[in-house]
Amino acid sequence: MCAGYVEGVEGIIERLNAGEVVIGDGGFVFALEKRGYVKAGPWTPEASVTHPEAVRQLHREFLRAGANVMQTFTFYASDDKLENRGQNLKISGEKVNEAACDLAREVAGEGDALVAGGVCQTPSYLSCKSETEVKAIFKKQLDVFMKKNVDFLIAEYFEHVEEAVWAVEVLKTSGKPVAASLCIGPEGDMHGVSPGECAVRLVKAGAQIVGVNCHFDPLTCVKAVKLMKEGVEKARLKSHYMVQPLAFHTPDCNCQGFIDLPEFPFALEPRILTRWDMHEYAREAYKAGIHFIGGCCGFEPYHIRAIAEELAPERGIVAPGSEKHGMWGAGLEMHTKPWVRARSRRDYWEHLAPASGRPKCPSMSTPESWGVTKGHADLLQHKEATSSQEMKHVLEMQKKAKS
Amino acid sequence: MCAGYVEGVEGIIERLNAGEVVIGDGGFVFALEKRGYVKAGPWTPEASVTHPEAVRQLHREFLRAGANVMQTFTFYASDDKLENRGQNLKISGEKVNEAACDLAREVAGEGDALVAGGVCQTPSYLSCKSETEVKAIFKKQLDVFMKKNVDFLIAEYFEHVEEAVWAVEVLKTSGKPVAASLCIGPEGDMHGVSPGECAVRLVKAGAQIVGVNCHFDPLTCVKAVKLMKEGVEKARLKSHYMVQPLAFHTPDCNCQGFIDLPEFPFALEPRILTRWDMHEYAREAYKAGIHFIGGCCGFEPYHIRAIAEELAPERGIVAPGSEKHGMWGAGLEMHTKPWVRARSRRDYWEHLAPASGRPKCPSMSTPESWGVTKGHADLLQHKEATSSQEMKHVLEMQKKAKS
Amino acid sequence: MCAGYVEGVEGIIERLNAGEVVIGDGGFVFALEKRGYVKAGPWTPEASVTHPEAVRQLHREFLRAGANVMQTFTFYASDDKLENRGQNLKISGEKVNEAACDLAREVAGEGDALVAGGVCQTPSYLSCKSETEVKAIFKKQLDVFMKKNVDFLIAEYFEHVEEAVWAVEVLKTSGKPVAASLCIGPEGDMHGVSPGECAVRLVKAGAQIVGVNCHFDPLTCVKAVKLMKEGVEKARLKSHYMVQPLAFHTPDCNCQGFIDLPEFPFALEPRILTRWDMHEYAREAYKAGIHFIGGCCGFEPYHIRAIAEELAPERGIVAPGSEKHGMWGAGLEMHTKPWVRARSRRDYWEHLAPASGRPKCPSMSTPESWGVTKGHADLLQHKEATSSQEMKHVLEMQKKAKS
Amino acid sequence: MCAGYVEGVEGIIERLNAGEVVIGDGGFVFALEKRGYVKAGPWTPEASVTHPEAVRQLHREFLRAGANVMQTFTFYASDDKLENRGQNLKISGEKVNEAACDLAREVAGEGDALVAGGVCQTPSYLSCKSETEVKAIFKKQLDVFMKKNVDFLIAEYFEHVEEAVWAVEVLKTSGKPVAASLCIGPEGDMHGVSPGECAVRLVKAGAQIVGVNCHFDPLTCVKAVKLMKEGVEKARLKSHYMVQPLAFHTPDCNCQGFIDLPEFPFALEPRILTRWDMHEYAREAYKAGIHFIGGCCGFEPYHIRAIAEELAPERGIVAPGSEKHGMWGAGLEMHTKPWVRARSRRDYWEHLAPASGRPKCPSMSTPESWGVTKGHADLLQHKEATSSQEMKHVLEMQKKAKS
Repeated sequence: MCAGYVEGVEGIIERLNAGEVVIGDGGFVFALEKRGYVKAGPWTPEASVTHPEAVRQLHREFLRAGANVMQTFTFYASDDKLENRGQNLKISGEKVNEAACDLAREVAGEGDALVAGGVCQTPSYLSCKSETEVKAIFKKQLDVFMKKNVDFLIAEYFEHVEEAVWAVEVLKTSGKPVAASLCIGPEGDMHGVSPGECAVRLVKAGAQIVGVNCHFDPLTCVKAVKLMKEGVEKARLKSHYMVQPLAFHTPDCNCQGFIDLPEFPFALEPRILTRWDMHEYAREAYKAGIHFIGGCCGFEPYHIRAIAEELAPERGIVAPGSEKHGMWGAGLEMHTKPWVRARSRRDYWEHLAPASGRPKCPSMSTPESWGVTKGHADLLQHKEATSSQEMKHVLEMQKKAKS
Repeated sequence: MCAGYVEGVEGIIERLNAGEVVIGDGGFVFALEKRGYVKAGPWTPEASVTHPEAVRQLHREFLRAGANVMQTFTFYASDDKLENRGQNLKISGEKVNEAACDLAREVAGEGDALVAGGVCQTPSYLSCKSETEVKAIFKKQLDVFMKKNVDFLIAEYFEHVEEAVWAVEVLKTSGKPVAASLCIGPEGDMHGVSPGECAVRLVKAGAQIVGVNCHFDPLTCVKAVKLMKEGVEKARLKSHYMVQPLAFHTPDCNCQGFIDLPEFPFALEPRILTRWDMHEYAREAYKAGIHFIGGCCGFEPYHIRAIAEELAPERGIVAPGSEKHGMWGAGLEMHTKPWVRARSRRDYWEHLAPASGRPKCPSMSTPESWGVTKGHADLLQHKEATSSQEMKHVLEMQKKAKS
Repeated sequence: MCAGYVEGVEGIIERLNAGEVVIGDGGFVFALEKRGYVKAGPWTPEASVTHPEAVRQLHREFLRAGANVMQTFTFYASDDKLENRGQNLKISGEKVNEAACDLAREVAGEGDALVAGGVCQTPSYLSCKSETEVKAIFKKQLDVFMKKNVDFLIAEYFEHVEEAVWAVEVLKTSGKPVAASLCIGPEGDMHGVSPGECAVRLVKAGAQIVGVNCHFDPLTCVKAVKLMKEGVEKARLKSHYMVQPLAFHTPDCNCQGFIDLPEFPFALEPRILTRWDMHEYAREAYKAGIHFIGGCCGFEPYHIRAIAEELAPERGIVAPGSEKHGMWGAGLEMHTKPWVRARSRRDYWEHLAPASGRPKCPSMSTPESWGVTKGHADLLQHKEATSSQEMKHVLEMQKKAKS
Repeated sequence: MCAGYVEGVEGIIERLNAGEVVIGDGGFVFALEKRGYVKAGPWTPEASVTHPEAVRQLHREFLRAGANVMQTFTFYASDDKLENRGQNLKISGEKVNEAACDLAREVAGEGDALVAGGVCQTPSYLSCKSETEVKAIFKKQLDVFMKKNVDFLIAEYFEHVEEAVWAVEVLKTSGKPVAASLCIGPEGDMHGVSPGECAVRLVKAGAQIVGVNCHFDPLTCVKAVKLMKEGVEKARLKSHYMVQPLAFHTPDCNCQGFIDLPEFPFALEPRILTRWDMHEYAREAYKAGIHFIGGCCGFEPYHIRAIAEELAPERGIVAPGSEKHGMWGAGLEMHTKPWVRARSRRDYWEHLAPASGRPKCPSMSTPESWGVTKGHADLLQHKEATSSQEMKHVLEMQKKAKS
C-alpha cells in the first residue's frame, strides 16, 4: 500500500498537530535547470513528461535527504502559463500535471512521504483577468490533483495575496488540507499588504498552513513568517506555518526579491548557502515555531539533508541519506592531512567565513528595477514595453495597484 | 551496436588526430556527494553498486550536456583505497569497477560517447610500497577495464609523477590508448618536478594524451597544461593535451591545491564558477591547443554544457541539452520585467562581477598546511621532521589514520 | 578688528536665517592622533597648550578648505575628564580651554570664520552625578568661553539627550547662540529616545541649532537629522539643523556607533571616505534642509574642501584651498598617460567602486558589545545585570576603570 | 650648532656602517595634497615658498614620529618639471629648492636628523633629451643642495635605471654620500632591467645606498630590494639598502605600479595601511637586511611612528611622538567599555582583518593601461595623444625602448 492520504492519522495536519517537524523538499526548477531539463526564462515543467527519469531521480534524492513531502513538479504548469511561454510544447497541461503527480506518488511510496499538489501565480491574474477566469485555471489543475488523489495542496509563489486567496478558495473545495505560501519578504506583498495581514486573509480563506517561499534568503523568510504568525495570533486565529526559502544569500534585495538582483538567474553561484548555513536556518525556523521547513530555488538535496540533520534530535529521525554524511564534518576524521582532519568538528564549520575566490567582485549588488521602486514605473515602461502584450497587462495591473 | 572502441575511426586518438575537440564529463564525486550518494572524506564510489540509478542519471546529464567521454566512476576504487577507508563496504573492488564500467557503457551507447576506464593515485604509493606492489593495484583495475572493453584509459589525479608513470606503464600493456593527468598546478608535482618535465616523462612512458585535472581552477590548470606542452615540444616529442579542472575559483591556493583551502570540502559554494566563467575557460583551453576539455570536482552538467556551447562554432555540434538553454541568456527575452529582459545578451553576462551576498566574508583565504607549504610534504613528513615534537605527533596521527 | 561675534549681521544664526550654508570644520581628535599630538584612548586635548603650532596648523587647513566655523579644540576638556584620564597632565582644564579659544580665534581671524566653544558629555553624568554637579562642569568651561568671547556655543557628542539638555540649559545662560548635537543614529539615544523626540527636547531647552555628530557615517547621520527635523516640525517648533558625521563608512554599526566596531580606533583605514563620497554627503545634507554641514572623526581638510566644492554653486564661494585642487579630477588633464588623463572627469569618479587591496578582509564586521546591543546599555548595566556572573564582573571592571 | 653633516661620526653612511637602523620620513606630496597645499596632477612643491608653515609642520611631525632623515621637499622641483606643468608659478626652481632646504634644516636641528637633498626623474629624460641636458637639470638642483650644505643626497623615483645612473653620476661630484632609489617592483625597471642588475649599475655608478620607493606596497618593495641585494652580492659589490614604499595595499598592480590602478590618485583610501600593517613591514624590511626604512606616498606621521615602535627594541630609541601612543593599543586600557578595553593587546590587532564598510566594492581592481601591456601602445596613443607635446616624446621613448 502506498503512503497516500489516510484520514486521521498520517496527514500533514495530523502530523503538525502532533508537534511533528515536517521537512519539505528543495527547488526543482533551479536544480533541473542545472541538470539540463528546465529552460531558464520560461521555467516550465514539461520534463515530467519528456524526461521522467530526471524528475524521478530528483524526487528520490530529496526523499533520501529527509524530505517528508514530495511536491508535484507543477510549478508554472497552468494552461495559461504553458501557452503563454510559446514553447509549442505540444504537451497538454493536463498531461504535465498528471505525469508530475505520478512521479511524486511513485517516489513518496518509497518512503513515508506525503504528496502535495501545487499551484502558483498565473499570467491570467497579472493580465487582469477576472476572478472567475483565474479560478478556472486553478480548478483545472485541482481536477488532476483530485483524480490522482494527492495528500494535500499547496498554493505557493504568489506575489499578490488577493490571487493567493482565490487559489485557496478553489483548493478548499476539494476537502483536502490546503497550505498557502507567498513569495514575499517582511515588507509584504506587491500591493504593500503586510505579512501579518496577508496571513490573516489566507487563514480566513481556509488555509491551514501559511508561510512564504522563494524570493529571499532563509533568515529573511523566517522573519517574514514570524510577522505572519504575529498577525494571525493578534487576530486570534490559528494556523500552522511553513517556510521554503531560497538557498541564496540575498541581504541586498529590495522588496521584489532575487529577480531584481543583477545576478539572477545565471550568476547566483557565489550566493549559494553552505550546509552549515542551513543548520542555522533550520534552527531559527524551528525556534520561530515554524514546523513545515523546506526549500525553494537553489536547494539541492544536501541542503535538505542539513535541515534534517540539524533537527534530528528534536525529530528522533535520521534521514537515509545521512549514511553518506558525517555530522559536522566527521567524514574528515581519517583524512591523511592532519590540518584537514582538524576540520572534522562543529566549531570549525560554524565559525568559518568562506572566501569567494573572487577578489574583483563585490559582496553586495544594487538591485535593478528601472526606477520602479521610485514610483515612476509607468513612464519608463510606457517607453519600453511596446513589444509585449503581457507587459501592457503588467502596466494595467500596476495602475490598478496604485489607484 | 554500441559506440565502443572501433579501430581507426571513432577512437579518442583518431578524433584528436582529426582536430576534433573532445568534451569530457564533470565531477562525479562532488556532484554525487551533494545528491547524497558519496561520503565526503572517504570519497569512495560504491554507489555504482548500491545506487546505480543515481550514477546512471549523472552520466546521462553529462552526455546530454555535450560530453563525448563517459569516465567510469572508479575514482578511489582501487582495492587498497576501499580497504583503507575502513568502510566495511562488503563490496569487492572488482564489483565496484565492473558496475561502473557497465553504467558508463550503457549511457555512452545512448549517444556517441567513448568509455574511459580511470585509475588514480593509491594509498600504497603514499605509504611507500614498492613499484611492484603499486603496479599490481593498477593491474587489478585494468583487468576489469579489459574485460568490460572500455575504449581508452585515463590515469588521473596523481600528485607524484613517478606514480603516474607507473600507472601509465601498466595501462599501456593493454594496447588501448592511455591518457595521463596529474593534479598539479604550474609549480609542478609534490617533489617539485616541473609540469614540462612531468609531461615529458609521461609521454616517454607511453601516454598519448597528457594534462592536469582537479586541485586548481580552470585558468590555473590551463596554465599548467601550457607548461606541459612547452616541455613536450622542447623535447621534440608529440602528445595530445587534456584539462579537467575544478569548478571553483582558487586564486589563493598554494601548490597543494584546494585541499588546503579552509573551505574544503564543505564551504566551497562561494567559489563555484558560473556558466559564463566556463565560456572563458573553454575558449582559453582551446586557444592553448588543448583539445580534450572537461571538468573535475564541482562541475555540474550545466558547466559542461557551457563548454559545449562556447565551442559549438568550432565543433559544429550543438549538445542535446542545449534545447533547454538559451545561448548567453536568450531565455530571458520574454521576461515580464524589462530590466530582466535586458539581461538576455552576452555583453551583460560577460561583464557582470557577481556579488557573494556575504559581506562578512573575505574574497581570499589563507591556505592551511601546518608549515608544509613549500611543496615537499612527503620529504618533510617522512624524513626531516625530527626536530619538532609537533611534527612527530602529526606523523603518529597519520600512521594511526593509515593503519 | 577680529572676525568675532557681531550682533545682527555675521553671527551663526543670522547666516542660517539668511539661508547661507555654513561649513563646519573636521575632526581634531583623530587628525591630531595621526599627526602625533593626541593619545588614542584618553583623547584629551592638552596639545593646545603643549603643541599649539600643531593645533593652529590644523585649524588653518580647515579654514583654507572652506570651513566657516573654528570649533575650539576642547573635546574632553572638562575638568572631570582630564582628571579621570589620569594623565597627570599638570595642566589645568582652564588653561587648556583658554589656549584652545586663543588658537581658534587667531585662525578664525585669518578668514571670516566664527569661533564656537564646545562642550561634550562628561564622566560625571555617566557615573550618575547629580544635575547640579554635571551642570557645574559645563559652567566652568562656559566661563572660559565667555571670557574669551567666542561667537557661539556647541554642546556636542552626547549619547544621552538628558545630559545634552542640561548642557544647553547651562550654555543658554550666556545669551550666545547655542547649538546641540547628539552622537546618535536613526535609532535614537542610549535610552531609546527617538531622534525626533531628542530634537524637540533640545529645542525646548533653548538650542537654536540641533543635529548629530560622530558615531555614524554621513548618510546615516543625515538620516538621523532628517528624523529630528520631522520631529521638530511635527511639534510646530523651529530650529536650524547641523550634521558633523564620521568620515568612515559604517553600514555595519549597531546603535552605539563606531566605538563597537572591531576596527575602532586603530584599523579604520579601509573605511575612510573618499572626497567623492563627501560630494554625495554634502548634496544629501543640503537637500535634507541641513545648512550647517561639517565633519567629525576622520575628516581631514580635503574632506571639508570636497563639501565646499560640492556646494560652491549654491554658496557662490570657492574656498582658498581649491587653488590646489582641480574639480572632479581636473588636475589630471595633463597627465602623461592617456588612461590617467581619462580620469579627469566627474563621471569617472562618481561611478568608481574603489578596491580595498585587501582580499583577505571582509567588507563588513560584526559590532562587539558583549550582549548590550539593544541600546539600553545603562539600564542593563546598572539595574538588570544581576542574573549573570559575567555582567557583574563587567560592571566591577567598569567601576574600577572609572575610579 | 645645527645637526648638520659632520665628518666621520653622524653621517648616514657612518650610521649604517655602525649597524644603526635609520628611519626615513613619509610622503610629502600626498600628505600635503590632503592638507591643501599640493595640487594632484602637477604634484609640484612650491608650497615650501608659498606656505612654509605647512611644510615645516609636516617635517616636524615626521621628526616627532621618529624619522632620522628630513628629505628636502624637492620632488618634481627640477626646472623642466616646474615649467612643463604650466603652473605659471612665477617662482623660480632655485627659490623652491632653497626654501625646501631651509625648512628641512630648521626642523632637523630640532632633533638629531640628517638633511637629504632629493632629485627625481625629469621630463627631459622622458622626452629624450641628451645625457648632457638631463645631467644639467640635476646639476642645477645639486648646486642649491651644496650651497645649503645638506648632509647627503638621494636620487629617487626613477622608472629607468639609465636616468638614475646619470643622476648618481652628477650627485657623486659633490663628494657627499649618495643614495639611489628606483620606483620599480620585483619585475624591474621600465626597460625590463631586473632589480638585481639595476642595483649593480647604481652601485657601480657610485651609490652607497640603493633601494626602491613609491609605486608599490611595503611587502612588494621589500621583495624588490631583496632582489637588488642578491644582485649586488652576486656581483661581489657592497652597498647599504633603503626602502620607502607606498602606504597603500597594491596586490593588484602590474609592473607600472599604483599609477595604473583605477583608484589613483583620488580613491585610494580603502587601501591605506594601518599602523599594524606597518609593524609587519618594518619587521620584514629589517629581517631582509634593509637598514634605511621609511615611507613614500600615503605615509602619515603615525605610519612612521609605527616603524619606530616596531624597531624600538633593536634601536634602543623611543620616538618623542610615542608619548602620545600606547604600544599595541595600550591606550585603550582604561576605556569604559570592557569590550573596547579588550582591544588593548598586540594579539588583537595583529590578527584583525579590518572591514572596508564598502559591501558594493571589490577587493582588487584591474590596472588600466589601454593595452600598453599588450604591446599595441603606439596605435592607441597615436590616435589620442595629439594635443600634448610631452606625449610625443613619450611615444618616441617607447619606440626607442622597444627597438
